[in-house]
Amino acid sequence: MSSNNHVLIVGSIAFDDLEMPTGIYENVWGGAATYASIAASVFSKVHIVGVVGDDFPISLLNSFKERGIDTQGIERAPGKTFRWRGRYSHDLLSRITLETHLNVFSQFSPTIPESARHDPLILLGNIHPRLQQEVLNQLIAPHMVIVDTMNFWIAQEPTALNRLLEKTDVLVINEEETRELSGIHNLVKAAKNILKRGPKQLIIKRGEHSALLFDQEDIFFVPAYPLEDVLDPTGAGDAFAGGLIGYLATCTDISSSTLREGMYYATALASFCVEGIGTERLLAISTNNLIERTNKLKELVLVHR
Amino acid sequence: MSSNNHVLIVGSIAFDDLEMPTGIYENVWGGAATYASIAASVFSKVHIVGVVGDDFPISLLNSFKERGIDTQGIERAPGKTFRWRGRYSHDLLSRITLETHLNVFSQFSPTIPESARHDPLILLGNIHPRLQQEVLNQLIAPHMVIVDTMNFWIAQEPTALNRLLEKTDVLVINEEETRELSGIHNLVKAAKNILKRGPKQLIIKRGEHSALLFDQEDIFFVPAYPLEDVLDPTGAGDAFAGGLIGYLATCTDISSSTLREGMYYATALASFCVEGIGTERLLAISTNNLIERTNKLKELVLVHR
Repeated sequence: MSSNNHVLIVGSIAFDDLEMPTGIYENVWGGAATYASIAASVFSKVHIVGVVGDDFPISLLNSFKERGIDTQGIERAPGKTFRWRGRYSHDLLSRITLETHLNVFSQFSPTIPESARHDPLILLGNIHPRLQQEVLNQLIAPHMVIVDTMNFWIAQEPTALNRLLEKTDVLVINEEETRELSGIHNLVKAAKNILKRGPKQLIIKRGEHSALLFDQEDIFFVPAYPLEDVLDPTGAGDAFAGGLIGYLATCTDISSSTLREGMYYATALASFCVEGIGTERLLAISTNNLIERTNKLKELVLVHR
Repeated sequence: MSSNNHVLIVGSIAFDDLEMPTGIYENVWGGAATYASIAASVFSKVHIVGVVGDDFPISLLNSFKERGIDTQGIERAPGKTFRWRGRYSHDLLSRITLETHLNVFSQFSPTIPESARHDPLILLGNIHPRLQQEVLNQLIAPHMVIVDTMNFWIAQEPTALNRLLEKTDVLVINEEETRELSGIHNLVKAAKNILKRGPKQLIIKRGEHSALLFDQEDIFFVPAYPLEDVLDPTGAGDAFAGGLIGYLATCTDISSSTLREGMYYATALASFCVEGIGTERLLAISTNNLIERTNKLKELVLVHR
């Protein structure tokens, strides 16, 4: 692969209303595909696939384009863009959903533009596993498929999800989802269970603690960056997955080492994401910022300096 | 310092009644000084200081001695040994105290044997901060004082604890205690606050996640070992602190690097501790076991293998 390749990212594009301890922020540009594409675009060109309503401003489409995110795959449907309203706890460690308006997202059936069907690296954001499967059916020769999902699909659509897992290279989920998907509390045992069901690698996101990579032989551990000012955890997991796939697109060969290296960049991007409301901090980072933070992350585990 | 030095460890010696998801275990040999001394004895000779009742069997005193733990400092008082009964949650992530019988521990006033007053490395286990201070008053020239404490003393004895912090080199506490001691939720800011109050280093234990070392310049991060079989978390934090001080006693010079190296050994010892009920697994490990696990811990963070 060369850095001229696009990565393909499919998922939600949304407006979020965020009730944070620091204030209420409405109409915040969000959605999994948004966060992931912005993070990936730090490294790579992106084909984004999603749906927006007729309320979605041209200016935001232009914001994608300015970052090398090709918006051909964004369908504009009559009606309103997906909207989520949530309230975070005082310590930002938990949140509740106050309102979910799927709007145009309820009829979403992803169509991959002709130009994107040869993309070797695919990130299937958290949508119905049947739709994730439909994306795969439209691809010519995907080299690596990275998949996110959530508790709702694990509980409600186990058959469709199991079929998708067979086609998954890297599954990126959180601790709770790992336990629900496997039915096993212990993470090591849970990971072994999941790795028998298709994925070659499992990445478990543990928020402010770390991320773990499990494959058949090894476990790899990336520390989370200890931040002084966390403003908004929304989208951090998506920024992680997007950062990972974007970094991998720059590698001539994807190996165990490049995946580990990518997890450092992914973690750095996730750490920037939570420092601003919505995508604001993620949009503002420079290459220097990213390299500096990634180096600091690596220094966290150095015994000898 | 040479490896001929003893480390001095002061704290509780107890019998625990443990209600675990796997069964009820009664009269389990425990207490902070017990776990810490056993872990430290892997590396170093130990002077243990604590109190037991007349019910405490000679066989356990001999178990200490067989490991190079000098028991001169164990006072045998009329009455019963400290006893704690606790029940762990199904996932072992939380526990409740069912019964605490301080017994002879309620009158404990630590007397440091003459032979131990020159020990350069001191671990003050979690007891009343006034008693911790009394230990320090009996020492000739302590080189490094490592201190543990708990929420109860943070809330009830802030003045005595603040005085002790001024004499503390390394404070080893958990996340919750860090937040309570500083009154600050964010760990980075909390650490900065605590490091202004005396300790040169703060180590935050995060259980199954990691341990963090904060000093004036840097943050260091040691992953926890991802275990398949966790049986009993009791004493893991004490095994960590004991392993750390024991390792430091083998170093000719204590530097930032040796402290970091020591945290790896400490984490490895804590990981063994939780694999058995009480001290059973900790007592059984070989040097090979320890080196193998410490190496595996270090491999967890290796990008290139």
